[in-house]
Amino acid sequence: MHQRAKELAADVGPRRLTVAQAADEHVLEAVDDAFRAGLVRAILTGRKDELLPLMGSLGMSEADYRIVDTPDPAHAAREAVRLVSAGEADMVLKGKAHTSTVLHAVLDKQIGLRARRLLSHVAVYDVPGHPKLLIMSDPGMNIAPTLQEKIQIIDNAVVVAHALGIERPKVAILSAADTVNPAMPHAVEAAVLSKMSQRGQIRGCVVDGPLTLDAAVTYEGGDILGSRSDVAGDADILIVNSIEEGNLLSKSLSMFAHAGFAGLIVGASSPVLVVSRADSRKSKLDSIVLGILLSEHLKKVAFTAPPLERILTSEVRFDS
Amino acid sequence: MHQRAKELAADVGPRRLTVAQAADEHVLEAVDDAFRAGLVRAILTGRKDELLPLMGSLGMSEADYRIVDTPDPAHAAREAVRLVSAGEADMVLKGKAHTSTVLHAVLDKQIGLRARRLLSHVAVYDVPGHPKLLIMSDPGMNIAPTLQEKIQIIDNAVVVAHALGIERPKVAILSAADTVNPAMPHAVEAAVLSKMSQRGQIRGCVVDGPLTLDAAVTYEGGDILGSRSDVAGDADILIVNSIEEGNLLSKSLSMFAHAGFAGLIVGASSPVLVVSRADSRKSKLDSIVLGILLSEHLKKVAFTAPPLERILTSEVRFDS
Repeated sequence: MHQRAKELAADVGPRRLTVAQAADEHVLEAVDDAFRAGLVRAILTGRKDELLPLMGSLGMSEADYRIVDTPDPAHAAREAVRLVSAGEADMVLKGKAHTSTVLHAVLDKQIGLRARRLLSHVAVYDVPGHPKLLIMSDPGMNIAPTLQEKIQIIDNAVVVAHALGIERPKVAILSAADTVNPAMPHAVEAAVLSKMSQRGQIRGCVVDGPLTLDAAVTYEGGDILGSRSDVAGDADILIVNSIEEGNLLSKSLSMFAHAGFAGLIVGASSPVLVVSRADSRKSKLDSIVLGILLSEHLKKVAFTAPPLERILTSEVRFDS
Repeated sequence: MHQRAKELAADVGPRRLTVAQAADEHVLEAVDDAFRAGLVRAILTGRKDELLPLMGSLGMSEADYRIVDTPDPAHAAREAVRLVSAGEADMVLKGKAHTSTVLHAVLDKQIGLRARRLLSHVAVYDVPGHPKLLIMSDPGMNIAPTLQEKIQIIDNAVVVAHALGIERPKVAILSAADTVNPAMPHAVEAAVLSKMSQRGQIRGCVVDGPLTLDAAVTYEGGDILGSRSDVAGDADILIVNSIEEGNLLSKSLSMFAHAGFAGLIVGASSPVLVVSRADSRKSKLDSIVLGILLSEHLKKVAFTAPPLERILTSEVRFDS
């Protein structure tokens, strides 16, 4: 993450984090990094007899953490989520528990964090040599989103951009060409989403597509489109059409372009951090930073109304 | 392209190339590079009154090239393709003519280069720091290939691998996860293609999938799969599920990982090179190198039988 995001998160002051089944070495290291940096206070759930020895071996002090002893992963996830739902913490981080176990708890009607929105995965990349952070969605949750789901995926990504201080993010709907080929359903959807943005049905951002990756993010690529795109060359948010596209772009940015990465699940009433084992310690810490910024932002713009209903409600004026 | 590919192409000696509507500065530069390197002799089609001044300004000698004067792009493309079809040249390179104009001529029943195979785009990347060339398909032609089309896309990519001297290429069917999620149609298709490979229905290679990009190409990623994949960590060929996936991976490799690139259309009886204006002079030259190697290889293994019929014909033995 850019230094600026870290400074913003530090300004917010320590936020409260729960960890679902915390007995994972790499997750605990990242949590301790965040604690020592003054970014979080954490509640760890899991079996105490597993947690304490591991914390000891990592040089973590029991006194610095609240520990909630739970018998198994499902209980750990439920308790980690319940504490956020009850207002005792601001966000939940997946530890050793499976993502599906955590999401099951997040979606629970009693103790969960439902906000009547689609949950989607939002990733933020810091690509060496590229002048701005790139926000990408959805590389990890929705497999083949429909047009209506894409609207909500955009909306969730825009909330993250706002949390990062980007007031009116430029959203590129990625495609394999910059013209609308009626034989390419994703390009057709991109055109529809662009028009919805122009009509004010998608707010807080400007959406344009179809755009190829180079046209979206570099002035060189965007130059070809000249004045015919408000996004080309300067995109903040990249919307992919499938989980496969997102995973490919994500992996190639990490592996071949050595990009930094942070990610979380958006659409619940609080941030849900589902870092994977393969993510680096730095990625995990950066994801916590992102969670802090989103948590702070959601205090101001709580997910109260279901955005899709708002978006699709006709607001055509008949009296003009 | 790796030095080895260039040496192989130089060993083959000059091959004969036609250029469809050659009056394009960047295409002519690449053709002249190839001519000076002893790789090609070229026949240029197009309006002579356009071509000669441009060649002059680029320092190209009229005496080094055969020029076929044609009135318009369609005639230029037809003539460039006809000369290959008639055995007067070995491959065709798109100049200023549109890709669709060239493909229209390639698919013409009278003068074209049909081989009863699916045409697909095959790209070859030389990624800095990665130890081997990566062959990828299809990033530019088939929008959303069916399972049967994927079989032919694999087959065409395997022919390119063989042309590059890779005897038994490892083919990864890319996905967003390394396990088969029945809710993900592309992962399901990957499993089917793997089994077809194991049954000998896809030949000259070993196919495995679903594989994420990192599991496919790095030992680190592939380590997770241990002995459960013959491809993981060492893939030669990457099969994407859609033109969008291919375009994204291609663009991110070029833009962010600074990869070298060559590409051509495979499945016709001779190589068809459709470089784009945006491709660098080096990419255009490398594509010609690739065309030379494929052309040489096709002399030995001419596309005679339609591979899909061969592949899908039951060879189950009832007498055993």
